[in-house]
Amino acid sequence: MFSRSTQFLQRLTIINSPRNLSFKQLNHIKPTINRNLAWFSGQSRKETFGGKLRRRLKNFFIVTIVGLGTFYGYRSYRRYRWFNEMSDSDKTIGAKPRVIVLGTGWGAVPLLKHIDTQKYEVVCVSPRNYFLMTPLLPSVSVGTVETRTVIESIRSLIGPRVKFVEAHCVNVDPEAKIITCSSDGEQTVSRGDDVKAILVPSRRTDGASSRIIKDSARVRPEFHMKYDILVVAIGSENNTFNTPGVEEHAHFLKELLDARRIRSAISDAFESAMTPTQTLAERKRLLHFVIVGGGPTGVEFAAELADLVREDLQIYFPHLVASDVKITLIEALDHILSMMDKKISDYTERHFHRENIEVLMNTFVKEVKQREVIIQLKDSDELKSLPCSVVVWATGIKARPLTNKLREIIGLNIQSNRMGLLTDPYLRVKGVDDGSIFALGDCATIQMPKLIDRIHSLFEEVDTEHRGALDVQQFRTLVEKKITEFPQVFK
Amino acid sequence: MFSRSTQFLQRLTIINSPRNLSFKQLNHIKPTINRNLAWFSGQSRKETFGGKLRRRLKNFFIVTIVGLGTFYGYRSYRRYRWFNEMSDSDKTIGAKPRVIVLGTGWGAVPLLKHIDTQKYEVVCVSPRNYFLMTPLLPSVSVGTVETRTVIESIRSLIGPRVKFVEAHCVNVDPEAKIITCSSDGEQTVSRGDDVKAILVPSRRTDGASSRIIKDSARVRPEFHMKYDILVVAIGSENNTFNTPGVEEHAHFLKELLDARRIRSAISDAFESAMTPTQTLAERKRLLHFVIVGGGPTGVEFAAELADLVREDLQIYFPHLVASDVKITLIEALDHILSMMDKKISDYTERHFHRENIEVLMNTFVKEVKQREVIIQLKDSDELKSLPCSVVVWATGIKARPLTNKLREIIGLNIQSNRMGLLTDPYLRVKGVDDGSIFALGDCATIQMPKLIDRIHSLFEEVDTEHRGALDVQQFRTLVEKKITEFPQVFK
Repeated sequence: MFSRSTQFLQRLTIINSPRNLSFKQLNHIKPTINRNLAWFSGQSRKETFGGKLRRRLKNFFIVTIVGLGTFYGYRSYRRYRWFNEMSDSDKTIGAKPRVIVLGTGWGAVPLLKHIDTQKYEVVCVSPRNYFLMTPLLPSVSVGTVETRTVIESIRSLIGPRVKFVEAHCVNVDPEAKIITCSSDGEQTVSRGDDVKAILVPSRRTDGASSRIIKDSARVRPEFHMKYDILVVAIGSENNTFNTPGVEEHAHFLKELLDARRIRSAISDAFESAMTPTQTLAERKRLLHFVIVGGGPTGVEFAAELADLVREDLQIYFPHLVASDVKITLIEALDHILSMMDKKISDYTERHFHRENIEVLMNTFVKEVKQREVIIQLKDSDELKSLPCSVVVWATGIKARPLTNKLREIIGLNIQSNRMGLLTDPYLRVKGVDDGSIFALGDCATIQMPKLIDRIHSLFEEVDTEHRGALDVQQFRTLVEKKITEFPQVFK
Repeated sequence: MFSRSTQFLQRLTIINSPRNLSFKQLNHIKPTINRNLAWFSGQSRKETFGGKLRRRLKNFFIVTIVGLGTFYGYRSYRRYRWFNEMSDSDKTIGAKPRVIVLGTGWGAVPLLKHIDTQKYEVVCVSPRNYFLMTPLLPSVSVGTVETRTVIESIRSLIGPRVKFVEAHCVNVDPEAKIITCSSDGEQTVSRGDDVKAILVPSRRTDGASSRIIKDSARVRPEFHMKYDILVVAIGSENNTFNTPGVEEHAHFLKELLDARRIRSAISDAFESAMTPTQTLAERKRLLHFVIVGGGPTGVEFAAELADLVREDLQIYFPHLVASDVKITLIEALDHILSMMDKKISDYTERHFHRENIEVLMNTFVKEVKQREVIIQLKDSDELKSLPCSVVVWATGIKARPLTNKLREIIGLNIQSNRMGLLTDPYLRVKGVDDGSIFALGDCATIQMPKLIDRIHSLFEEVDTEHRGALDVQQFRTLVEKKITEFPQVFK
């Protein structure tokens, strides 16, 4: 018994330790090495099928093991580093100047990714704990793209060194350098389901689980937070131009919840149209989709909707699609995509004509009702009614309440632009003397220095010979030196 | 000019038609064939790298073209057949007996897939236009599985020959053989967003697009439909055992919307706990998740939630997970998974203990409040309060209102089972004399014929020699003949 296990151990040692390989053993494993080498160099010799399969399987096995090992090793290392960095940044709280970034959109996220967390304590405050890939929203609203693929958790984006607080900033005190975040108990955030926060008595319909749930997972007490530097990147909200009924009856296309609602409304419209006792007029109304606003959002949604109808819904509702479905795009100007090149807007109009999307140009929407849209042609007093079911409102943006509040606090004589916060070319908000507030993105407008105000000093700077005139060479010098300062003029 | 094009045409003809191949040309293409054959038979000859690459690329190109051609050809053919079958079944409406199937769940869909549409005109009526893979709901509620992967459009499942109407059946008249579907304008269906249908004034919170939209895509007039055969497969609804507060404050886990709401509530709870001014007690309450019901749904959800916390949320909320998160499972009996084998429930309890899921056995929930659950131990009068945020209620099912209505119409003396419709072993609903109503799934209970009632006739049937006694052979004959009729006895 004992001798056998010793022998076994010996054999194990010999095989496992390469230094103890005998010459005979080397000869034994040589063909294997050669074969493997041959495989790597692309040459292959005559082999039996079984041998080949065994060799391939062995190689596959080795590659899999090594790959999995590398993957898990790397993952563990990543986690270890993540936790380390997190606790490091916890320890240094208070020692570094604090930067508060408001927002998790296109303005805030690139900044958060590149800010130097060794120099600053960075806190991100936003009511939305994910980054949303807004250009894909029209695709989400028709189901081409899945909802989860267009969002990314803000915590995984910004890493362990930046703190994130899901809260709604309602006030900024530029003197005391303090932001106030509201108690959010009643407020809704478009995370996909806002019914919890609506205070109506619980009701439940026959059989379905669709209820108003008043759980208490969302309880946010008010808090204040001091900052040394504040970055406002809170974006904008939908502009209804005070058109009556838009808030109540039209869908926006700005948040994930909007896209999900539109998707469900399209499905509802088709299923309603399939109800046996539906009248023809009602069916035509149900399948009339109206998009207001011929900008990129409206045009993209109209095109996606037409694709959905033609490619997918046609299969299940061939009769409806052939006779009743109608898509109308309403634009106030005389061209859609008017901010782009004439060629692009012409092409789009022709393409929409082929796709049976009706484009109403020079048309204003006067009111949105529950089952119709009231329109008015330019240079005409006549009002016309379009019976329809789903209305998507994509006419543009306006400043959020917090932006306007901040403008008022600073002073409307300095912050005179109603579209957003005026900043200097370094994105510092105008009227904040210590330069502690920055603004970027949709909520900000850069006020470029006017060339005309400094024309005299510029001239003198370049006119080195004090001749009172510039030659070509001097003018070139002027342009080259000042292009970064006046990009709007010299580009 | 003319001669050149003739020559060109001739050359084309020669090359394109294999019959006109000259011997020289054959010699020219022979090596290619040989090489390709060699590739198929697994032999390879010494080749230059460039030649090999060219050959591989050519093969790849051919395979791609052929593959794409086959795919698109097959798709077009499928579509063509689909439309053909659809219009065929439109033409024969009224000529065949009509089968109406109520429901799109586990009972209805397999039936709809196998029913012979040549013999019957089949109509499916359900308020839900998709099939839901219910066992995956716990995974959806924690985000392991994406919502869209657990549902499948009912129209694509049942094919073009079955008509589908999204409607809510509210009444059945077994005498006139007519079903009534309600006007669905006010009713909500859990398609993912039910806010449209709730009639509260439109309100909108600062900045977010979370509004109540009253669009008019869901307008369903009431209609009646005659049937020759009715199949009731409407399933069941959640049983609250009349516990106060469950409807208002607990989440169910039965429809897709429930899963989505739970997911959003978990996220809310963690974000609320991260708010800077949150007290310790409130943080512990926010991160206390309570699951009521130790059946498969409750156990699976508890396990998924524990996985989510340990594997994913731990990265972003390490301090919270380490100290404050708590999961409690409440079960009224003395074991969880009590309907399964003792070994399974023991293993689950041990595993939950390791996973830090607290299991409260022999405990009844007396009331669910917005921030707490009131529990009572068996054999005790003392009430105890568990402060918590998200409560998931998974205690079992009960009959839907339509099931009970149908039971009343037929007569409660025949339909005496409160769990659902009593049927005979052929799934015919008891008390419907012409056998025109069938029921299956959660809404039905099969009433097996009682062996004791027919013991006399059975005995006489087998006792061929009228001895008044059975030998082993005769008893075996009895079992073999009657096993299909009395599966509950002879299995």
